[in-house]
Amino acid sequence: MKIDSVGLNPQGHVLVTGANGFLGRHVARCFAGQGHTVLGIGHGDWSREEWELWGLSGWQSADVTLDTLHQYAGKSTVIVHCAGGGSVSFSIDDPIADFERTVVTTAHVLEYVRTSAPSCRIVYTSSASVYGSVERLPIEEDFPAAPISQYGTHKLMAEQMVTSYARQFGTSAAIVRLFSVYGCGLRKQLLWDACRKFANHDSLFMGTGDEMRDWLHVEDASTLLLAASENASPQCPIVNGGSGQGVTVREVLFLLGSRCFQTEPSFSGAQRPGDPSRFIADIKGATAWKWHPTRQWKEGVEEYAAWWKRNSL
Amino acid sequence: MKIDSVGLNPQGHVLVTGANGFLGRHVARCFAGQGHTVLGIGHGDWSREEWELWGLSGWQSADVTLDTLHQYAGKSTVIVHCAGGGSVSFSIDDPIADFERTVVTTAHVLEYVRTSAPSCRIVYTSSASVYGSVERLPIEEDFPAAPISQYGTHKLMAEQMVTSYARQFGTSAAIVRLFSVYGCGLRKQLLWDACRKFANHDSLFMGTGDEMRDWLHVEDASTLLLAASENASPQCPIVNGGSGQGVTVREVLFLLGSRCFQTEPSFSGAQRPGDPSRFIADIKGATAWKWHPTRQWKEGVEEYAAWWKRNSL
Repeated sequence: MKIDSVGLNPQGHVLVTGANGFLGRHVARCFAGQGHTVLGIGHGDWSREEWELWGLSGWQSADVTLDTLHQYAGKSTVIVHCAGGGSVSFSIDDPIADFERTVVTTAHVLEYVRTSAPSCRIVYTSSASVYGSVERLPIEEDFPAAPISQYGTHKLMAEQMVTSYARQFGTSAAIVRLFSVYGCGLRKQLLWDACRKFANHDSLFMGTGDEMRDWLHVEDASTLLLAASENASPQCPIVNGGSGQGVTVREVLFLLGSRCFQTEPSFSGAQRPGDPSRFIADIKGATAWKWHPTRQWKEGVEEYAAWWKRNSL
Repeated sequence: MKIDSVGLNPQGHVLVTGANGFLGRHVARCFAGQGHTVLGIGHGDWSREEWELWGLSGWQSADVTLDTLHQYAGKSTVIVHCAGGGSVSFSIDDPIADFERTVVTTAHVLEYVRTSAPSCRIVYTSSASVYGSVERLPIEEDFPAAPISQYGTHKLMAEQMVTSYARQFGTSAAIVRLFSVYGCGLRKQLLWDACRKFANHDSLFMGTGDEMRDWLHVEDASTLLLAASENASPQCPIVNGGSGQGVTVREVLFLLGSRCFQTEPSFSGAQRPGDPSRFIADIKGATAWKWHPTRQWKEGVEEYAAWWKRNSL
């Protein structure tokens, strides 16, 4: 994609929280590719060699707190807040930990900016899970938020704090509600589980197969977060991050199974709790930023399968 | 008022968080008056003599955390969560502290119940501030929540956690959105400020005087929280806590000034930021619990002025 850069200060640093995660790594690489100095903070021990490969100029293994932000955020002019709970199931198993990872870290990022870096822009990586089950597609950003999982509730709570800081304190922020982000390196969720199952000659999947998702390649997600950093303001725009196209789980798994594992999926027919059935993003908000998704889901799925086989077989 | 008790276990304890606060004290007295053993936890050092006078059988000066709840909640069958940030202005001056007092304490109460006392019922004392500025009166509980202050945002976030625990984990809960609670002992807000100003021969007030509030006497608020404890369930009912009647600031201050201080108020005409202008509660939800407010605002204001004079002149 092409970004008409409105000029992030190339002298400033970009801090990516959760930079060791699937999304965070790609975000770091994307911002570094635009010439920014990118710092990372979050959980996980990885080697300097590895984080440098992902575009980071510095990495700090630490919780995201006021104290650690004071220590490590340096002269950041943008914080992309990717840290947070990572799944619906974790949020059910350990809701207070999910709350702390998602909501409390956001409170600390906001308070750090308010008190110590008021001109720093915040990009919050939210989730389509804030919508819950919707009746009408595609989903527009002003649909009422009605999450049906702890994960989605915590994401919504974090959004509300971001919005309220922007309104009350003039914090420049933007929120991107990411739909089903996928890509090489993602070691969970549908494609990961499906590759493992197919490789183990298990082709029976939970659900009906008719569940519809809006798949967004992680590289497209990263350029959207870059665009969000350039459009952050005290008006705190909220945009959906999707491809604008709905593809069923059945279509994805048939492609993956037939092209990459010489098999075909079947479905149990049972719906998974907390799993809304159909999602398609309306992406007018994001495309108004001159951002456009560039990756097609079919090539993305094949690319993923090839990566999975290189790394797991 | 009359409560058709559906039977809080008289053997169980009731824990009131923030029991040293204005609302918490009255809540403790109300539950104790119904024969319950009431424990309190929160901030503030007060003498045993004093807290016993308010109906408490035990008091612990401590933050509300998982650890302190494990230590002090005992065999509570009800937790009335009154702890939390106390004003819009504090939430603007110190938003992270307001977040911690309101949202984080609620997370800990919920997690304590989920992990250690799953049959314990939670009553959450929310606020009409979650509605923000509304266009239509009276305000019904299903009006969209759109807070315009940090305080209201944090209250809404806490509500959302309560609701999501009820849905996800079957936690029995009820939420009461209190409107303008007042009564003897309240050392802040309109009546307190007005008594001080009138006594100092200052009768000029911020605002237009046309701001409308729904005044609820703290004793009525307490009986409503008692009713909420008896109606808590995994459906997590949300009810407004008001009188159902709107009275302007002008009416209140004219009564207070003329009857108690032999003076009359005047108004600057300037609106206060973050202060919605008109509030009246629809109280059908609360009255369906067979709760009814019993105190009239005029007698309440005169009672307050008499208390203020006894304690401040």
